[in-house]
Amino acid sequence: MSTEISPLAPKSYPDMPVIEGVRFATAAAGIKYKGRTDVLLVLMDEGTEVAGVFTRSLCPSAPVDWCRANLAHGKARALLVNSGNANAFTGKKGKAAVELSAEIVSKAVGCAAPEIYLASTGVIGEPLPAEKFAGVIDGLVSQAATGSWLETAKAIMTTDTFPKVSTRTVDLGGVAVTLNGIAKGAGMIAPDMATMLSFLFTDAPIAASVLQALVSEAVGGSFNAITVDSDTSTSDTALLFATGKAASRGAPMISDIEDPRLAGFRVALGDVMLELAQHIVRDGEGARKFVEVRVEGATSDVSAKRIALSIANSPLVKTAIAGEDANWGRVVMAVGKAGEPADRDRLAIWFGDVRVAVEGERDPGYSEAAASAVMKQQDIVIRVNLGLGEGTSRVWTCDLTKAYVEINGDYRS
Amino acid sequence: MSTEISPLAPKSYPDMPVIEGVRFATAAAGIKYKGRTDVLLVLMDEGTEVAGVFTRSLCPSAPVDWCRANLAHGKARALLVNSGNANAFTGKKGKAAVELSAEIVSKAVGCAAPEIYLASTGVIGEPLPAEKFAGVIDGLVSQAATGSWLETAKAIMTTDTFPKVSTRTVDLGGVAVTLNGIAKGAGMIAPDMATMLSFLFTDAPIAASVLQALVSEAVGGSFNAITVDSDTSTSDTALLFATGKAASRGAPMISDIEDPRLAGFRVALGDVMLELAQHIVRDGEGARKFVEVRVEGATSDVSAKRIALSIANSPLVKTAIAGEDANWGRVVMAVGKAGEPADRDRLAIWFGDVRVAVEGERDPGYSEAAASAVMKQQDIVIRVNLGLGEGTSRVWTCDLTKAYVEINGDYRS
Repeated sequence: MSTEISPLAPKSYPDMPVIEGVRFATAAAGIKYKGRTDVLLVLMDEGTEVAGVFTRSLCPSAPVDWCRANLAHGKARALLVNSGNANAFTGKKGKAAVELSAEIVSKAVGCAAPEIYLASTGVIGEPLPAEKFAGVIDGLVSQAATGSWLETAKAIMTTDTFPKVSTRTVDLGGVAVTLNGIAKGAGMIAPDMATMLSFLFTDAPIAASVLQALVSEAVGGSFNAITVDSDTSTSDTALLFATGKAASRGAPMISDIEDPRLAGFRVALGDVMLELAQHIVRDGEGARKFVEVRVEGATSDVSAKRIALSIANSPLVKTAIAGEDANWGRVVMAVGKAGEPADRDRLAIWFGDVRVAVEGERDPGYSEAAASAVMKQQDIVIRVNLGLGEGTSRVWTCDLTKAYVEINGDYRS
Repeated sequence: MSTEISPLAPKSYPDMPVIEGVRFATAAAGIKYKGRTDVLLVLMDEGTEVAGVFTRSLCPSAPVDWCRANLAHGKARALLVNSGNANAFTGKKGKAAVELSAEIVSKAVGCAAPEIYLASTGVIGEPLPAEKFAGVIDGLVSQAATGSWLETAKAIMTTDTFPKVSTRTVDLGGVAVTLNGIAKGAGMIAPDMATMLSFLFTDAPIAASVLQALVSEAVGGSFNAITVDSDTSTSDTALLFATGKAASRGAPMISDIEDPRLAGFRVALGDVMLELAQHIVRDGEGARKFVEVRVEGATSDVSAKRIALSIANSPLVKTAIAGEDANWGRVVMAVGKAGEPADRDRLAIWFGDVRVAVEGERDPGYSEAAASAVMKQQDIVIRVNLGLGEGTSRVWTCDLTKAYVEINGDYRS
């Protein structure tokens, strides 16, 4: 497996402010390998509210089942993340392992077990040795501090080649509140390791029900609008924690999703989630090109998104991009196979600013040289106008390279 | 592009009998390149009945639109196949090109234009220079003979590395009738060239309506049960022609799909279509492994097929097979993402005869060595039992290798 940093990695990272009420620490519990950092514990002060979204897989991991059930009460005191073992497809032993993990942490923290959130990535089908957490949790609780977010983002990396962080500070009722996010993920999935996880933290005082509405609203255009390889992990998890500590500085408690004072935070959450999602694509296994697919003129937004994902998931489109080939015939193919309303004779396609096809034919002014110049860029926009309605969608993907096959063909060995 | 023959190619080809009433010839019309065989003309005697199935793409090629419309009357006298240009996404010019092609052939043959069937593969979006057919059709009509089916199958190859033929001779009401089939295709699609085409010919006297019912019935378990890369051509076409010449030897005319005398022919058609479909997978771009995915115990056959295709289309499953990695976690993932009823705790998975997972956990008797031995074979069966119902399905696919990326990333250049 390559350890080279993705050529699409960001050139610099933002300064990540402290989030009052959030402390963290990492340790090596020996889940799979000895001496490797494999556990992150995040502690949150009393009063922290939480919301989340999870994989749509019908075979979710035991930690996903656990978190989903706990979101009902919307309270959180700690988040435990481990790598090395996904605790997925582990049956009753998996359920016992999450219960033991939560018990160990809740005792050390001094809270109820359902206030502990869990996320695991790593090998599927092997029982998680949760008893190993017992040896490190007390130490983590006492060491937990408002340390480096970038180092924390590095600690949850697995096949990732760079850490993924994003931050915004916005106004909430006249008071500055901060939102920090970290993420990991490099295949849209790889059940062995590359599950997508994202954890977002804010000091804003926002009720769990409002957090849930916000995160559900933002996920469609961010984490659910990216694809590396069309595969979906059994463990994908995004959690948003709000400590509410900004209330002591005068920030208003927000308990209604319609509250107009939420406007800035809403935009910030969408931005942070989209930025993290795009970082995951930029770290896509073997990726050399970052691709935005824009579909316009569809009969609805839902239809536009299905067509956009059909293009973004097509191996033939993705290999053409890898080969810097302005092969718009494959885009037509992907539109056609999406099963959504499309009229060949109204379709127009652009690579970057170069219109390559219009009204059911090759653009009369088509220039292979101009289209090829677009394909040589690192960031490429493919735009399709269906000419049928007002539906639009944007999704992001990367190219399909030999390195992807290499990484995923050699993974377990 | 590699010209090496697929390692999965058959070791020998069957003798293909003459089909009375069918004659053919090939020529170089210079559609895209000079001096390359690019046209096949098949002539059929008067009285030939025809049926067909086509791509489900909503942006089909002009020849697909043409054939679909003509099937309404179910009569055929000739089939014209060209490579070098798919006549897809060519708008009004594409429609004019099929009309001109049919006119040229119908004049030379002496029949009505709607009795001419057309299939084109090659570059998308460029107008098909149908006028070039004028220079070769008269010659083809006069040369047409009951020649070599294997050579004919070779003539329609594009990115294929071996010709695809299949034949059966069966009893129809006490008389032996023959069914011959040829096919091309190497990606499930590649709009530039590797569209799937299949042409089937029989001397059995069977009415077009019955042929249509038979071919529609057989396609689900054959051409619609294979996938190389999940992509769907704008031009996929399968046509079944019946000259009825066996009537002169006493074969009964079949005009009712319920006719019990059809039993043998029905089985033969399924066999020939499945064999050709499997040949296409065995010639899958870059394929090194032939994979059968069997899903059992689903809530319905439709659900089983969706799950089977989710497994067969998963890049992570396919790269694992390329790497000879018994990575059943990826099979769990693909079951989970299919969106069909599945219960993690009832799932069982086999590679070949080796059960790797059962009842939501790794099989207690799991042997990595035994599973790895299966993965080293050239033909691999992945079996999944969902433990929920009686639904079953079988689909076929190949592995995803670096060669696939190479072939499709370098194609147009």
